[in-house]
Amino acid sequence: MLQRLIILGVGLIGGSLALAAKKHGLVKEVIGYSRQQSTLDKAKALGVIDWGTLDLKTAVEQPGLVFVATPLGAMAGIFAQLRECVHAESILTDGGSAKMGVMADAQQYLGEVFPRFVGGHPIAGREHSGVEAAMADLYTAKRCILTPVTQTQSQAVDVVRAFWQGVGAKVSMMDPEFHDNVLAATSHLPHVLAYALVDMLNDHAELGNVFQYTAGGFRDFTRIASSDPTMWRDISLHNADAMVKWLTAFQQEIEKYKTLISQQDAQGLYDHFARAKSARDYHIVNQGNSQP
Amino acid sequence: MLQRLIILGVGLIGGSLALAAKKHGLVKEVIGYSRQQSTLDKAKALGVIDWGTLDLKTAVEQPGLVFVATPLGAMAGIFAQLRECVHAESILTDGGSAKMGVMADAQQYLGEVFPRFVGGHPIAGREHSGVEAAMADLYTAKRCILTPVTQTQSQAVDVVRAFWQGVGAKVSMMDPEFHDNVLAATSHLPHVLAYALVDMLNDHAELGNVFQYTAGGFRDFTRIASSDPTMWRDISLHNADAMVKWLTAFQQEIEKYKTLISQQDAQGLYDHFARAKSARDYHIVNQGNSQP
Repeated sequence: MLQRLIILGVGLIGGSLALAAKKHGLVKEVIGYSRQQSTLDKAKALGVIDWGTLDLKTAVEQPGLVFVATPLGAMAGIFAQLRECVHAESILTDGGSAKMGVMADAQQYLGEVFPRFVGGHPIAGREHSGVEAAMADLYTAKRCILTPVTQTQSQAVDVVRAFWQGVGAKVSMMDPEFHDNVLAATSHLPHVLAYALVDMLNDHAELGNVFQYTAGGFRDFTRIASSDPTMWRDISLHNADAMVKWLTAFQQEIEKYKTLISQQDAQGLYDHFARAKSARDYHIVNQGNSQP
Repeated sequence: MLQRLIILGVGLIGGSLALAAKKHGLVKEVIGYSRQQSTLDKAKALGVIDWGTLDLKTAVEQPGLVFVATPLGAMAGIFAQLRECVHAESILTDGGSAKMGVMADAQQYLGEVFPRFVGGHPIAGREHSGVEAAMADLYTAKRCILTPVTQTQSQAVDVVRAFWQGVGAKVSMMDPEFHDNVLAATSHLPHVLAYALVDMLNDHAELGNVFQYTAGGFRDFTRIASSDPTMWRDISLHNADAMVKWLTAFQQEIEKYKTLISQQDAQGLYDHFARAKSARDYHIVNQGNSQP
């Protein structure tokens, strides 16, 4: 067992893993690294970390599990520094939502440390961000995808898998490219659609304030549009090919519905809606996938 | 005060108004009309109606407030029958989600009864349907839009407005065309988008079962795709022009994001996401619009 968890970037994702690791007795010590002293102070006050530092070298000089939980845009720089200073026995993983870019950056910047790096993505989140939003049970019964590649040490994979299982997550293995394709469709696409809808309605001044005429369905549909814009900008730009592919597919899907509606094709429209309802009721409601 | 509420179509919408009217002491008697005896039996057992009938003439021969809560596709036929048999002192309203078609049908089929008809749309719903899903507080603090036209008797408007206010709804007046435009954007469009996303993912066999990799955001985003497909088929077909207009606008909106992502325009993408988040946080979260 690794005695020490080192969280680089103490926000919702890193903070929640720290709280979960403590709760499940997986580590003796949690160290936090942040660029903001105020974040470290908050994290300490909330019991998320035992101690924190603004100096990356100090954070990683002892052996442990290093969890890179910074925004995607900051990872390449962190990897370059880690190559120089991370302890030789440490295992590294991350929580980034797009994996091809992270794996490429890790390979390029971690160099000889790369075999000890296991790409990861816990599929859990909230529209709130920051360490204040961290929760010990954020990952309980949630899926965590790991994306090891041929160079990755199997012992590193074992450690990271056991760690996520230890906090109650269901671990899956996946090729980084397949991950990015699936997540573009199931997560990144809906986020952009939700942002796009709210922004479009906000822009249409001729309708007045249309938000006053919205109901609970709109509230739920757009909940993810209250997510952190920096994070979703980074994810979109790091998964650009798959995003553009799925956005295009969705435009074509919309075209299908426009045709059905224009042609007053009652049966065709019903068939699509009924098939979607069945699929959601089966996979999401009955199978208990994507629990909140 | 009208002593009697007559619900034509005893499902979620009609049943919830009946429960609310009883709870608030607005009526002495609630009569239900349905095409299914089993629905009437359930409604009676649940305390939603005092008595029910499969015969429309029997339901409406005494004076009262007649609430047409059938699917949109059934309204024209109901209006044609009501013209022959509704009591001369009764006031009529409906709960249809698209109003131009309902107003046109009402004018054509209600004939001389039309001035006593006030088009209405309570903006409340659940993804569950049927009288079992009816709730006495479904309309509490929710918006209800009325769409009277020049021929509508002002006394009829007063009665219907007072009734909705009596069950705790916030009443707004609106031109039917403006209503359909606003609701296409805020409600009908998101429903089609949610159905379209689930159906698209369900169709992509090469990804395997992607629903297992979804999280709470997906669950909320697609909640409305578990709505009644017949109802949403009818709404889409009854509001076809506005739907096609907004579906096209949304395709163009997606095009904008594709360009921003392809060009790796970090600032532009951030600006759109941040503006959407601000708008949602302000209008939906802080102003308390669209409460669930």
